[in-house]
Amino acid sequence: MSDEKKILVFKVGGHVLDDETALQQLLDQFARIPGKKILVHGGGKLASELGRQLGIAPQLVDGRRITDAETLRVVVMTYAGWINKNIVAQLQARGCNAIGLCGADGNLLPAVRRKTASIDYGFVGDPEASAVNVSFLNALLAHCTPIIAPITHEAGTLLNTNADTIASTLAAALAKAGYNVRLLFGFEKNGVLWKADDDHSVITSLTKTDYELLKTSGAVSKGMLPKLDNAFAAKASGVQEVQIGSAIQLDEVLSDSIPFTRIHETI
Amino acid sequence: MSDEKKILVFKVGGHVLDDETALQQLLDQFARIPGKKILVHGGGKLASELGRQLGIAPQLVDGRRITDAETLRVVVMTYAGWINKNIVAQLQARGCNAIGLCGADGNLLPAVRRKTASIDYGFVGDPEASAVNVSFLNALLAHCTPIIAPITHEAGTLLNTNADTIASTLAAALAKAGYNVRLLFGFEKNGVLWKADDDHSVITSLTKTDYELLKTSGAVSKGMLPKLDNAFAAKASGVQEVQIGSAIQLDEVLSDSIPFTRIHETI
Repeated sequence: MSDEKKILVFKVGGHVLDDETALQQLLDQFARIPGKKILVHGGGKLASELGRQLGIAPQLVDGRRITDAETLRVVVMTYAGWINKNIVAQLQARGCNAIGLCGADGNLLPAVRRKTASIDYGFVGDPEASAVNVSFLNALLAHCTPIIAPITHEAGTLLNTNADTIASTLAAALAKAGYNVRLLFGFEKNGVLWKADDDHSVITSLTKTDYELLKTSGAVSKGMLPKLDNAFAAKASGVQEVQIGSAIQLDEVLSDSIPFTRIHETI
Repeated sequence: MSDEKKILVFKVGGHVLDDETALQQLLDQFARIPGKKILVHGGGKLASELGRQLGIAPQLVDGRRITDAETLRVVVMTYAGWINKNIVAQLQARGCNAIGLCGADGNLLPAVRRKTASIDYGFVGDPEASAVNVSFLNALLAHCTPIIAPITHEAGTLLNTNADTIASTLAAALAKAGYNVRLLFGFEKNGVLWKADDDHSVITSLTKTDYELLKTSGAVSKGMLPKLDNAFAAKASGVQEVQIGSAIQLDEVLSDSIPFTRIHETI
């Protein structure tokens, strides 16, 4: 496998994006990573704050945001606007030729608006790995480092999309296109924990069976559920390495010198 | 001159962006234009509205916005977020493979933060045609249609930039790189008018001397001044065609079937 076909898909979310010092540490380390790489970011808290300032109350069900027309405007402005372009500018200042995109740009991530019997998610989209515009992504990767905001599109409408799902979908599409993909979900903790409050209780190897047990015991809940669902989905789709670990100790995670969680497909 | 080296740089601003019907008409027509093209958009009114909702009063001097840190966040969210990504999604739905960028993306438009003795513009940047990343733009144009938000960057900081200046700077850089460039400033009027209130008084051919007379008489003022300064600057930089006309009658302007204003370098 040539280095040309190796790629890191790094998802960052959680409190790291809201903490300026943590974000700077992360960007310092991300900028230095050699080779092909993609950063996918979320940004929930900033969107909720702006929504509150504008008198729009945030609504979450199972860690997923309900998106009415007003909320869509807020998340597009926050994710694809402020957070995305700030990360790009700061990476440019570090010599990393970043380009900020959402899923509508270059038709990168076409999606299907979600409709279920039980919940109306509003302007929320689910992307398909098979629909990812990989040839466009390939062309971009020859020139720059894509920074992806969690917004997709369908038929002229922007759609809010879980950032973990975006990362998982991109990683799966790249693996299918012949890339050797390392997908890393980075956040403020060191990995999936046996005991939610003990940062030393990192599960370094997690199977689907373990995950079901953790769900039953309540050890993982809320925002961790879509993250782990997406992690297992990526692994099942052929992504070579799927990992969950500290976003601000990226050097250590990538050099395997601190504990993090590896996802295993086998039960 | 091969078609590969012909390009339209179309700037749209003014009330057209605030009027959903006008915007749809414009996008219908823009999507159909064959060959290479770039759309540069402004969006002043939406940013001012969001600023007001958040309790930030807009400040303008000679048609240029004064940008403090709070206002910068508002304009980045509005321009590079909501307006840019909506245009991209709507063009995608029309079969035009649009990609939305600001000047930080791919280091497209590095700028210098503006400092003058008389006015502190805050986070405002002036881009240089010589600094435009034309090789990146060339690579993009082979795949898609760039939609540019009026934001530039310097040393990790995003900067607010007049959209007319962005269009003029991009056009000049493309002309210097061997493109045959048609730069069209589209807005809600049919061109530069002798009588501000008479839409039939279009000046079809405007020289620098005419412009000075119009300034002295007060026939052009406010937002038209940077537009015309940028139009003449582009012409002086070697842009082949510089025109000002109706944004919602793009077909007619491009086919020369309604009046619009042509800029002439000669006095």
